[in-house]
Amino acid sequence: MKARITRPDPGDPVAGNGLLSRRLFLQGTVIAGAAGPAGAAAQADPLAVTPWMKVPGTGFTGYGQPSRFEDKVVRVIPPAANPVTQGVGPARTPLHMLDGVITPSGLHFERSHSGIPDIDPDQHRLLIHGLVKRPLVFTLEALHRYPMQSRIAFIECAGNGMLLNAPQPQQTGIAALHGMIGCSEWTGVRLSTLLDEAGVDPSARWVIAEGADAAAMSRSIPLAKALDDALVCLYQNGERVRPSNGYPVRLLVPGFEGNMNVKWLRRLKLTAGPVMSKDETSKYTILLKDEKAWQFVFPMEVKSVITRPAPGIALKGPGFYEISGLAWSGNGAIRQVDVSADGGQSWAPAALQGPVLAKAPVRFRAAWQWNGAPAILQSRAVDDTGMVQPTRAAFVNERGARGAYHYNAIASWRIDEKGEASNVYA
Amino acid sequence: MKARITRPDPGDPVAGNGLLSRRLFLQGTVIAGAAGPAGAAAQADPLAVTPWMKVPGTGFTGYGQPSRFEDKVVRVIPPAANPVTQGVGPARTPLHMLDGVITPSGLHFERSHSGIPDIDPDQHRLLIHGLVKRPLVFTLEALHRYPMQSRIAFIECAGNGMLLNAPQPQQTGIAALHGMIGCSEWTGVRLSTLLDEAGVDPSARWVIAEGADAAAMSRSIPLAKALDDALVCLYQNGERVRPSNGYPVRLLVPGFEGNMNVKWLRRLKLTAGPVMSKDETSKYTILLKDEKAWQFVFPMEVKSVITRPAPGIALKGPGFYEISGLAWSGNGAIRQVDVSADGGQSWAPAALQGPVLAKAPVRFRAAWQWNGAPAILQSRAVDDTGMVQPTRAAFVNERGARGAYHYNAIASWRIDEKGEASNVYA
Repeated sequence: MKARITRPDPGDPVAGNGLLSRRLFLQGTVIAGAAGPAGAAAQADPLAVTPWMKVPGTGFTGYGQPSRFEDKVVRVIPPAANPVTQGVGPARTPLHMLDGVITPSGLHFERSHSGIPDIDPDQHRLLIHGLVKRPLVFTLEALHRYPMQSRIAFIECAGNGMLLNAPQPQQTGIAALHGMIGCSEWTGVRLSTLLDEAGVDPSARWVIAEGADAAAMSRSIPLAKALDDALVCLYQNGERVRPSNGYPVRLLVPGFEGNMNVKWLRRLKLTAGPVMSKDETSKYTILLKDEKAWQFVFPMEVKSVITRPAPGIALKGPGFYEISGLAWSGNGAIRQVDVSADGGQSWAPAALQGPVLAKAPVRFRAAWQWNGAPAILQSRAVDDTGMVQPTRAAFVNERGARGAYHYNAIASWRIDEKGEASNVYA
Repeated sequence: MKARITRPDPGDPVAGNGLLSRRLFLQGTVIAGAAGPAGAAAQADPLAVTPWMKVPGTGFTGYGQPSRFEDKVVRVIPPAANPVTQGVGPARTPLHMLDGVITPSGLHFERSHSGIPDIDPDQHRLLIHGLVKRPLVFTLEALHRYPMQSRIAFIECAGNGMLLNAPQPQQTGIAALHGMIGCSEWTGVRLSTLLDEAGVDPSARWVIAEGADAAAMSRSIPLAKALDDALVCLYQNGERVRPSNGYPVRLLVPGFEGNMNVKWLRRLKLTAGPVMSKDETSKYTILLKDEKAWQFVFPMEVKSVITRPAPGIALKGPGFYEISGLAWSGNGAIRQVDVSADGGQSWAPAALQGPVLAKAPVRFRAAWQWNGAPAILQSRAVDDTGMVQPTRAAFVNERGARGAYHYNAIASWRIDEKGEASNVYA
């Protein structure tokens, strides 16, 4: 076989360092015939008959698993400080090995405060009480009687990206830097339906949500949000919610910081004020440069990350590549993503993969002709409220060195001459 | 605890036998306070502290699994005729245990013709040849260089629903009757991009797609479809395609009958005519009443099925229930789904859960006040080409008793006094 050409030809670059037009990604675009240097495809001889075509394959399984050749596609788990605290901390999503917007449930990040409880669904109860006319307790069977709703939504830990505010760029993988974001199709009962049933007292302003883990992780949620679009979820990506993501019941507060989407949900108490739980005071407040702090800043702000190329996926020589990533906003839908291959000197609009949904990630794609010289890749998202992802300098100027929750600044991958990507500040 | 009320009150019935307004499912609808007979929720005492709150939970896992309490949520696999032919036939999706539109990859139905090959992705090749200017062979790494596209799409076996054309209603589960439909977010390279690269000869009209299983399962696909919206898929629901669904490369021909979405894709040959493979002649032709047959009828026609209630999920006494199901069309998007609780005498429009996408299933939901008497539930879908799901009588009149591919007639669940559902002809 002889190496030959694979570069689709979308015309001249539209921004510096080889960024090409996004029309490459538009349905129905004709891509001009091959002309380019890369050897991604090869001229064809007849294919060999591979060993697996010569014998019958294996039989069926009730619940399927990934190929054994994909056994490195796993969540990234830091070593536990000691054996008692296993399951305290994060397990992060390997974003560079994925595509599309749905996160496979087995790889959806988790952040747990006292491990993953092994809950018997027949014994689990959800209590709604406090400032309500009729305190109610629900079995899972009872919850299944109510009208349901499905939506595709992201959940992002408030601490995602925290390492990117270190004084020096941390040389680690994309999971450690960005991997506390996941997206599922969530299905459940609207919390407003259950609150209507209980009868909200006019003095109620907050809902305290508590999990059935050993930490009884608790957060205060504004009643307005609970009545707007919160879901009491029973299903994740079609099947019952996974244990690490809250089986058998998880609260979804679309767009709000991760731990407000309380897992293993057991209790919702309506109150006049927030509860000031340990999970919203000692943690999850946003420290500013002047040592003051923002508390109760809930939506995760507009953000994006390039997932390919990324550390762990080396480019194999100059030529055509797709730059692909995710963008999301807790305030609404993504309106635009721009990509730069020259460290932010020039930008080209990326293609957004529809459907573009509010409070759900969108996959963006840009076309890039890499000339083999070092390059710095960046992405910058804008949401439909007009919020623009800030530069790192602007973020640090506001938050200082210690503020690291809700980090959403533009991130940079440096591609070196060997095609390897690393985290840099640019 | 004292049993009490859970019926949201959406007003008077809008169709026979207790069907209620779909406005119950619309965002922002106020549901009137509780008034009704069912005991789905109970008045609240303080919750007991459950055993799993008293000890730390378990640690993290790299690749997560469902709860051990969900071990009955598995694909339904008929016994193999003999041990050599395991993996020949279907493994079906347990639709009644799922919600939303995404099928978990571990539960996505499969239909295989010689088991599941264990393919080493480094050795796998995709060949494009025949009536092209430049025959090409692609490694997986080469395919990763191309611009990608993601879409949520269903795949339905042409034989799904075949049992529903039996002379007498078969008393079996929803998986056996309807379970060869699945939906994933698929990501891959547009086939048109690869064909552009190879250079299509003007005389080419068909593409023969061949799998790398021991059956070398092969289908002829019109070139026009290949150039329209076919995808050479590398990812399914975010991660690499599962072995049972074609790892490492599956062809997606959105809306077309299942086995044209060739798994383990190894070869695409451009030809002037169809190849008349065993997989499109001895099977997958549509027999008519007059013993003639339709060949090469590709799109799966408009269809719907109620997934809850369904056999295996008994209603627990009269009261409010959600009727929920899936509707889809290989010709476009679903425009409307109507639901009947009186065997088709009267119909009420169901709520459609957005986003409503072409060639993807839509989840429909209807509100139902069951009075405890026997009832017959039906759903009827209409797509945006105006095609209406036919009655069983109309279908049988055209196809006769032996025609059973592309069965898409209105299906009926009879709910008996005990709340149990069974398959009936009505």
